[in-house]
Amino acid sequence: MVDKEKDEMVVTPWEVKGKVDYERLIKEFGTQPITEELLQKIAKHTDKLHLQLRRQLFFSHRDLDVLLNLYDKGIKFVLYTGRGPSGPVHIGHLIPWIFTKHLQEKFKTRIYFQMTDDEKFLVEDELKLEQTRKFGRENALDLIALGFEPEDTFIIFDVEDIDLLYDISLEVAKRITYSTAKATFGFQDSTNIGWIFWPAIQAVPCFIHAKLTGENVPALIPAAIDQDPYWRVTRDIAQKLGYYKPAQIHCRLLPGLGGGGKMSSSEPETTIFTTDKSEAVKRKIWNAFTGGKETAAEQKKIGAEPNICTIFQYYYFLFEERDEKLSEREKKCRNGEILCGECKMDLAERVNGFLAEHQKRREKARNIVEKFHIKR
Amino acid sequence: MVDKEKDEMVVTPWEVKGKVDYERLIKEFGTQPITEELLQKIAKHTDKLHLQLRRQLFFSHRDLDVLLNLYDKGIKFVLYTGRGPSGPVHIGHLIPWIFTKHLQEKFKTRIYFQMTDDEKFLVEDELKLEQTRKFGRENALDLIALGFEPEDTFIIFDVEDIDLLYDISLEVAKRITYSTAKATFGFQDSTNIGWIFWPAIQAVPCFIHAKLTGENVPALIPAAIDQDPYWRVTRDIAQKLGYYKPAQIHCRLLPGLGGGGKMSSSEPETTIFTTDKSEAVKRKIWNAFTGGKETAAEQKKIGAEPNICTIFQYYYFLFEERDEKLSEREKKCRNGEILCGECKMDLAERVNGFLAEHQKRREKARNIVEKFHIKR
Repeated sequence: MVDKEKDEMVVTPWEVKGKVDYERLIKEFGTQPITEELLQKIAKHTDKLHLQLRRQLFFSHRDLDVLLNLYDKGIKFVLYTGRGPSGPVHIGHLIPWIFTKHLQEKFKTRIYFQMTDDEKFLVEDELKLEQTRKFGRENALDLIALGFEPEDTFIIFDVEDIDLLYDISLEVAKRITYSTAKATFGFQDSTNIGWIFWPAIQAVPCFIHAKLTGENVPALIPAAIDQDPYWRVTRDIAQKLGYYKPAQIHCRLLPGLGGGGKMSSSEPETTIFTTDKSEAVKRKIWNAFTGGKETAAEQKKIGAEPNICTIFQYYYFLFEERDEKLSEREKKCRNGEILCGECKMDLAERVNGFLAEHQKRREKARNIVEKFHIKR
Repeated sequence: MVDKEKDEMVVTPWEVKGKVDYERLIKEFGTQPITEELLQKIAKHTDKLHLQLRRQLFFSHRDLDVLLNLYDKGIKFVLYTGRGPSGPVHIGHLIPWIFTKHLQEKFKTRIYFQMTDDEKFLVEDELKLEQTRKFGRENALDLIALGFEPEDTFIIFDVEDIDLLYDISLEVAKRITYSTAKATFGFQDSTNIGWIFWPAIQAVPCFIHAKLTGENVPALIPAAIDQDPYWRVTRDIAQKLGYYKPAQIHCRLLPGLGGGGKMSSSEPETTIFTTDKSEAVKRKIWNAFTGGKETAAEQKKIGAEPNICTIFQYYYFLFEERDEKLSEREKKCRNGEILCGECKMDLAERVNGFLAEHQKRREKARNIVEKFHIKR
């Protein structure tokens, strides 16, 4: 199931291909691993460590230690994450948002959430602006459905809210040469000029809190690691503009059900969307790539491989909160005591339970989305 | 007075150097000369030809003939011009604005005027955004002082009005590759990414009328010829977006009082600003480069050269409306019947008369500038 092409790792903000080697990413991107010491530091503020930290889904950072030291000295921070609305939201998107909500609650901070309808229009040949804007509005419902509170949650719809972003984006853009942008993002002669400018727009929410409130505090960006290049450039220019460098905390990418690097909307049969119906979820999970053997007999005899199983990843990322139950499942799998069919059916039930609740809250969110809009 | 370096002609939207060869520009830029036939066509609508057409200050065009044919068939057009507010306005800036007002009156059309405070910030290293925005507001007073009527005049302040521009600019930007932008504008690796994007913002007023009114009509852009490269790219993508190609009419550049290509704010002693005091005007004109001889005796004997005289250019561009008086002055100059001192004193008086009136109207404009703002 893992083909040659997929084995070649490519991780940029616009493309994730192949088997992702996270150790290598830390080295190549020049980020810091999240150490035991740093985890202890976080736990001081959050009591028990969140699942996504315990299981090293968030595994890398930039300046999180600096940020926590500032926090201890009374300098708060804001959270910033976002979404490129090129289609419906899938479960992989929810992972860092769920963690962001956890941070918001524990640290009592404001979150800025950027809906990059402009970027997705510029980057995706076939998408129209009205489509990405509509996806942006729809995707916001998924965020709100996770239970964020409006008073501390500020959604920025880039095109609609450009009047809030443009002046800061100019300050940023003036300080980034084409040469730097090319080296960081791999721009080419065929890249359109909107896309080339766009990193300046993505930088703005790192700094917008000071504009809105007069309070100059650092931003912490929880996001999948493929977004890291943006922040390198932003970090380079932050201090020139009189702001703190944004800190980051990077998570792994939830793999698609077919294996491979990242769950992706462009492969709908291996992706569980938040609006999927129960039957579709069952079908997709049933067809998922696992670490199972050719026959049940063989598997009972020699066991399976949870480490390459996408189903197991779903338990690991979101659908088995209890660590001891997760270990038990892993052990049983390796021993051949549990077969793939059982794991799949169990997962489908959990996912459908989760989605039933999510979909209800998502529909309710339609009535209150404006309460979350940065222009409220 | 004309040094070697100045002789090398360079004409781009950001730089004009050397003796400008307008015939060569028509060839190099690939524009059309304004022919006698086209002048007749214009005169049908304007009665007497405007000074700036009679004297070939406007000397080149793109699709003006097409535009007039459409106009004859009942398809109106809008006018679009603008200003890069990097400093105070000088008399050179007023020349195309005066002509634009003439066109507006004769063709009863709306004008969109773009104040490119974002561009000037991105392009000029030393300028702050608050400065270019302030210059924009100040420069608008000069436009209004020329007597434009608010009901048909819409000033766009880019930063303030970005919410009106951004969606169209994205549509434009998506269709311009870096390769095209580089070839057209001479961008380099050291160019900042805001500047690279900016041509998409400059294109927007060509198309904004349809967005605001639902009426899809072509735009006619009267502007100095150094701005031509912008419109080449805009013309290339207009039809892909469902709009008419913008037409253009190009004027010559009023030379500075020191000779050379273009009156420029960066050389204040050879530039007459609209806010200059009477004494400064006299001094600058007194020190101007002329076609005069070393001594009065010599000049009386062999005459002078009005063709290289900056003072004569001022009469030609703006300060001698009567063609026969202009010819008379030229003849007297060539014959040595009039000396430079007399021409200078006479010009200083006319310029100061013009500016006294302009400055009065300019101050009055402070109270009504919002009536001209596109967001009125």
